Amino acid sequence: MSDNKLPLPFPRILLGPGPSSVSPRVLEVMGRAPIGYLDPELFEGLADLQSKLRMVYGTANSTTLAMTGTGMAGMETCLANLLEPGDAVVIGVHGFFGGRMVEIAERLGAKVTRIDAEWGKTIDPEAIRTAASATSDLKLIGVVHAETSTGVRQPLEPIAEIAKEFNALFLVDAVTSLGGIPVEVDKIGIDASYSGTQKCMGAPPGLSPVTFSDRAMSVFANRKTKVQSWYFDIGLVNNYWSGDHMYHHTVPGNLLLAFRESLSMIGEEGLDARFVRHETVSARLIEGLGELGVHPFAEEGYRLPTLNSVIIPDGVDDLSVRKELLTKYGLEIGGGLGPLKGKIWRIGTMGESASIRNVDLLLAALRKIIK
Amino acid sequence: MSDNKLPLPFPRILLGPGPSSVSPRVLEVMGRAPIGYLDPELFEGLADLQSKLRMVYGTANSTTLAMTGTGMAGMETCLANLLEPGDAVVIGVHGFFGGRMVEIAERLGAKVTRIDAEWGKTIDPEAIRTAASATSDLKLIGVVHAETSTGVRQPLEPIAEIAKEFNALFLVDAVTSLGGIPVEVDKIGIDASYSGTQKCMGAPPGLSPVTFSDRAMSVFANRKTKVQSWYFDIGLVNNYWSGDHMYHHTVPGNLLLAFRESLSMIGEEGLDARFVRHETVSARLIEGLGELGVHPFAEEGYRLPTLNSVIIPDGVDDLSVRKELLTKYGLEIGGGLGPLKGKIWRIGTMGESASIRNVDLLLAALRKIIK
Repeated sequence: MSDNKLPLPFPRILLGPGPSSVSPRVLEVMGRAPIGYLDPELFEGLADLQSKLRMVYGTANSTTLAMTGTGMAGMETCLANLLEPGDAVVIGVHGFFGGRMVEIAERLGAKVTRIDAEWGKTIDPEAIRTAASATSDLKLIGVVHAETSTGVRQPLEPIAEIAKEFNALFLVDAVTSLGGIPVEVDKIGIDASYSGTQKCMGAPPGLSPVTFSDRAMSVFANRKTKVQSWYFDIGLVNNYWSGDHMYHHTVPGNLLLAFRESLSMIGEEGLDARFVRHETVSARLIEGLGELGVHPFAEEGYRLPTLNSVIIPDGVDDLSVRKELLTKYGLEIGGGLGPLKGKIWRIGTMGESASIRNVDLLLAALRKIIK
Repeated sequence: MSDNKLPLPFPRILLGPGPSSVSPRVLEVMGRAPIGYLDPELFEGLADLQSKLRMVYGTANSTTLAMTGTGMAGMETCLANLLEPGDAVVIGVHGFFGGRMVEIAERLGAKVTRIDAEWGKTIDPEAIRTAASATSDLKLIGVVHAETSTGVRQPLEPIAEIAKEFNALFLVDAVTSLGGIPVEVDKIGIDASYSGTQKCMGAPPGLSPVTFSDRAMSVFANRKTKVQSWYFDIGLVNNYWSGDHMYHHTVPGNLLLAFRESLSMIGEEGLDARFVRHETVSARLIEGLGELGVHPFAEEGYRLPTLNSVIIPDGVDDLSVRKELLTKYGLEIGGGLGPLKGKIWRIGTMGESASIRNVDLLLAALRKIIK
């Protein structure tokens, strides 16, 4: 047939920082014959996707859709559409992905004030407030809700309040939270948010769900300059998704309909039940790891149930453990990023991967490997 | 099971401007369990993908990979990495997609000289030469090889020569040509090119194959400013694809391995045989359409065998014919874009869709519908 070595020895069980495992029901849709980007059946699927995505985001925002690109494309989409050169922004950085937000905003020509927190801890809202008061014409405050690099959950409400107080837009990275813990865009007062399909949402990677509030869209509509990126221009992309379906690019129908299927599964499970499942599975993992002398890295009270960061015990070799898990068990867990390389593991319990079966298997395997 | 209305009544036969139909062999790979972005098995697949993609592009360029986004993401990738604000470029426009190249270059802050040709005709190389000589510090000349909006094949050699003469980079849009007609990057002297997976390459949409010559990469390396787009920064993306596989974004494994499978199929068929197949199928379509009074739109001698543009006969209603084809036969063909809306059909015979069976079915259906 083919000279490709895949199919793999066995399907991976993905307990890393993403992608997560995907249900056979979603994979079946991935493997269907493609459909044209102007097909009425696709439009029906996209409208359904949007309505279900609004439910997961907790929003009534009409501009709620999936960008063709991964979560990082969503980050760039939000920043590129809301910022113009010279705009002042405050970005909270408590890990790798906050740093990326800074990098992208700077490439767009924004004046960035960066508020750092120690990796593993949350950002102090008072530091954001101080920076905001010291900034004239503050346009936007951005933070990462669930820092994939540290496993820390950042409380959003206090920062949303500060954004309101200073009349700034509030941007939230929900890549590792959406579908796994509550995001509640409208209730909290988030103006723009992006995520990925391959974490807690149960679909393969390749799409970035985004949502923009009416206030954000009015800031967009009143831009003095065109968005630097034509591909990420939310006005053009939205013209395809809504109303006349004006051609922008050939959307990836297979990915979109597979994502729609995973959103259907989220709706059937129920958001609250899904959040409880993530909590339960994570708690069992943390308890079991504790018995093996592997303890959490992130600050207590702010640990993500979706991405469990744990300290690699002294004398345990990061790479050889992960290699053995992968080659003997087909189990993937993640290593540390940047300064945390070799110091922590990042164990994802997200979406389809968040099951007692997976956690008990991982614990059994680790018991054998690290003794 | 699910409240989704799909599966469709019947799988579509895609004879529009893309996406094209996809082989069950490629779809099987699309539907496999996902794999992590740092998995050694994935790296093996990506290396194989790159080597096969070089074969199709006719290049030894080491920077030959697939961007996570559609063909338009590839267009933006090439322009954003090679241009800096103020750079002078000459772009030939003989249809919709040439116009997009202008739009993206302008958003990037380039000084664009636009050379227009009538839609349906080729660009006159002498007009490019005149513009090039009138431009100081010309950085880049860009053209669309296969204009999806008009069905015209633009000869590349004369423009490559002009680029050489003026020491400018030569950028080629190969979205509707790569894998269907020869592109021959190295032989012609193309410095950067992008395509899509969903046209002549036989894979679903969502990826954009790109290639950069060493000369283009050295222009990139000597930039004075950072690339405006972080997501499309070819240096960062290439760092993931090559060497240390440094994390940039979560690449879509399913799409990439499916694309690798379609590249394997191209290798097995053989490029030359594949080009002949496209010619043969297109010739049969054009002949059959002629019998129905439907004649080519594009200039004779420069008609693409991959995208057949034909004039809708007087008295035939564009929309109702296409609707009947879709609903009764599950056959998709494309309408005209922009000024050609309602005036032409665009019938794709690309990749897996380019078969005698499909063409004969379409002709039979049209015979019934337009009488």
